[in-house]
Amino acid sequence: MKVRIHVTLKDGVLDPQGEAVRHALGQLGFSGVNGVRQGKFLELDLDETDPARAEAAARHMCEKLLANTVIENYEVEIG
Amino acid sequence: MKVRIHVTLKDGVLDPQGEAVRHALGQLGFSGVNGVRQGKFLELDLDETDPARAEAAARHMCEKLLANTVIENYEVEIG
Repeated sequence: MKVRIHVTLKDGVLDPQGEAVRHALGQLGFSGVNGVRQGKFLELDLDETDPARAEAAARHMCEKLLANTVIENYEVEIG
Repeated sequence: MKVRIHVTLKDGVLDPQGEAVRHALGQLGFSGVNGVRQGKFLELDLDETDPARAEAAARHMCEKLLANTVIENYEVEIG
């Protein structure tokens, strides 16, 4: 079963990587870019076939490894 | 207008970062993880209010800066 996970910085947490992208876009001539936030996107292929259990496992993985929950949020999508 | 962009490695391109995550999950006791692919996720806040023009601008940004189209695919979602 495929699981898609987004890990994003919480609001208020400084995002130097996103800021660097915003600056680079400006230098390339793209105007009107007010903000850029950069996060991680993960696609997992799990043996688990039950959607509820796959989601529970993915959330557990986020808590343990994939996200730093002090500064990051995560979202899990199944399928 | 908010634009969400996913940048992912093309099929067949080696993903050492995803492989490292898969290995780390295994060491933490998560079994049944067959594969992990890691990509980037960007949220842009654009001045542009026309969805079609915002999407065109975002695609242009992907081609010029955000994605390496030799090895990466990108997807643009508006709103």
